[in-house]
Amino acid sequence: MKRRLDRTAPRRLVDRALRRCLPRPGSVPPTVRRAMLYSLFPGGKRLRPILAIAACRALGGRLRNVLPSACAIEMIHTYSLIHDDLPALDDDDLRRGRATSHRVFGEAMAILAGDALLTHAFEVVATHPRGGGLDFRKVRATALLARAAGVTGMIGGQVMDLEAEGRPYSYRTLARIHRGKTAALISASVEMGGIMAGARPATLGALRRYGENVGLAFQIIDDILDREGSSARLGKTAGKDLRARKATFPALLGIPASRRRAEAAVREAIAALRPLGVRARPLADLARFILERIN
Amino acid sequence: MKRRLDRTAPRRLVDRALRRCLPRPGSVPPTVRRAMLYSLFPGGKRLRPILAIAACRALGGRLRNVLPSACAIEMIHTYSLIHDDLPALDDDDLRRGRATSHRVFGEAMAILAGDALLTHAFEVVATHPRGGGLDFRKVRATALLARAAGVTGMIGGQVMDLEAEGRPYSYRTLARIHRGKTAALISASVEMGGIMAGARPATLGALRRYGENVGLAFQIIDDILDREGSSARLGKTAGKDLRARKATFPALLGIPASRRRAEAAVREAIAALRPLGVRARPLADLARFILERIN
Repeated sequence: MKRRLDRTAPRRLVDRALRRCLPRPGSVPPTVRRAMLYSLFPGGKRLRPILAIAACRALGGRLRNVLPSACAIEMIHTYSLIHDDLPALDDDDLRRGRATSHRVFGEAMAILAGDALLTHAFEVVATHPRGGGLDFRKVRATALLARAAGVTGMIGGQVMDLEAEGRPYSYRTLARIHRGKTAALISASVEMGGIMAGARPATLGALRRYGENVGLAFQIIDDILDREGSSARLGKTAGKDLRARKATFPALLGIPASRRRAEAAVREAIAALRPLGVRARPLADLARFILERIN
Repeated sequence: MKRRLDRTAPRRLVDRALRRCLPRPGSVPPTVRRAMLYSLFPGGKRLRPILAIAACRALGGRLRNVLPSACAIEMIHTYSLIHDDLPALDDDDLRRGRATSHRVFGEAMAILAGDALLTHAFEVVATHPRGGGLDFRKVRATALLARAAGVTGMIGGQVMDLEAEGRPYSYRTLARIHRGKTAALISASVEMGGIMAGARPATLGALRRYGENVGLAFQIIDDILDREGSSARLGKTAGKDLRARKATFPALLGIPASRRRAEAAVREAIAALRPLGVRARPLADLARFILERIN
């Protein structure tokens, strides 16, 4: 993969755009802005914005149209990490290789910084890119983001996850949890790229199928890494799913079967791209990249 | 006032619309939906949606156009109460006459229910009323809501409030806290009505000035009631501002001067309505109603 793509270039692009999207210093209380920045930078893989950008470009859309909503998705992802790590939820001290937000800024500020990132994401989607002509896309982007992040998506998944802890669960429940907790926002990232490129419903459907499968594969791999990896390598506390008796694929199916399930999901993701032709190749590469994390 | 308005009719209208806007049972995990409903019903005065509706109607806008965003504002207000009451923030047990969300559902669910209401509010603004033709208004409504609820508005005010606790503060700081914490969302409610009625910038400016003053008056009266009222009457813990050494108008200026400041704000609010003529009378009535709470 390394010979094909400079993986740091899209990340740098996202980071620059994220900085531009944030409220200016002086316009808001400094502490909360510092807490927002602390969790946003240095970020993780920036997978979600990179997927949004790749999808938009694959459809011939303009980078400047998709960048703000790509950033908004990263803000929502980041807010969800801050709130997830809170003592009342996963109670975690380590995230992206550093102390979690509430360990640095206190619980009150971490809650507010999370709220701030979530709220700001919607401001970004509604106001960028500036200028008219994109209202139809902005409205669809807002609705997509809210649905993916809300009770029908990410928050719904988190609630199910919370309620499944320490209880017996079926494959179906597990799949629903992961679809909500992770796949919803990842799938929305891809669809967002399509929306901002002005794609037609059939194309959006293909992107959605691709995104759901990529999301599923990503979560399975994440669960495997949580079992096999070290905290230092992951940048977050390893092995905590097991300790918290979380519903995961490795716990239900074992690691080899989980790995096969992830590989199958990546194949389905790539198959979903077929109607899009060769222009979707960067998206196929990204799907394969997900698997590489454990190879 | 009683002879002029049936105060329960607009509340019933808002309550019905709120129920319609919520995710259907079965479509989301039951617990989080129950937590969302628990905090939304029975609600408080529904001041914010009622202001949005009154503003829209005063400008000849359609009720069906403004109702969803009016509900979205109430959801955002409710989320802010849930998060404010959390142990890490105000640590309160009583809200609207009942146990606070985290006392009933636990802290984790209260955090998620708050997140869910905030997120769902944006889904509602972007998707209702269904059908095209209102995209321009929906985009402006989304941006307005996010700005008013975010770091430049409500969250910014909460952060300043948190940081001012137990410290000396100036009138200017206090005014900034209140402008953010309360006035931003109240003012946005009024402006939302204007946006959904398709009002022009000058009219929106007048509505904003009215809203900011109403919001200021509301917060001052709230602070006075916190000092003078009983928990039973308020439906929330009385006297807690004093105990938490919060920055308030009564603490800085004393009660008589605070009351005069609120009265002046209501006069300024009503004066701001002048360019709108007689059709704005219901808005003037609502501003006077704010003061009645302490008379």
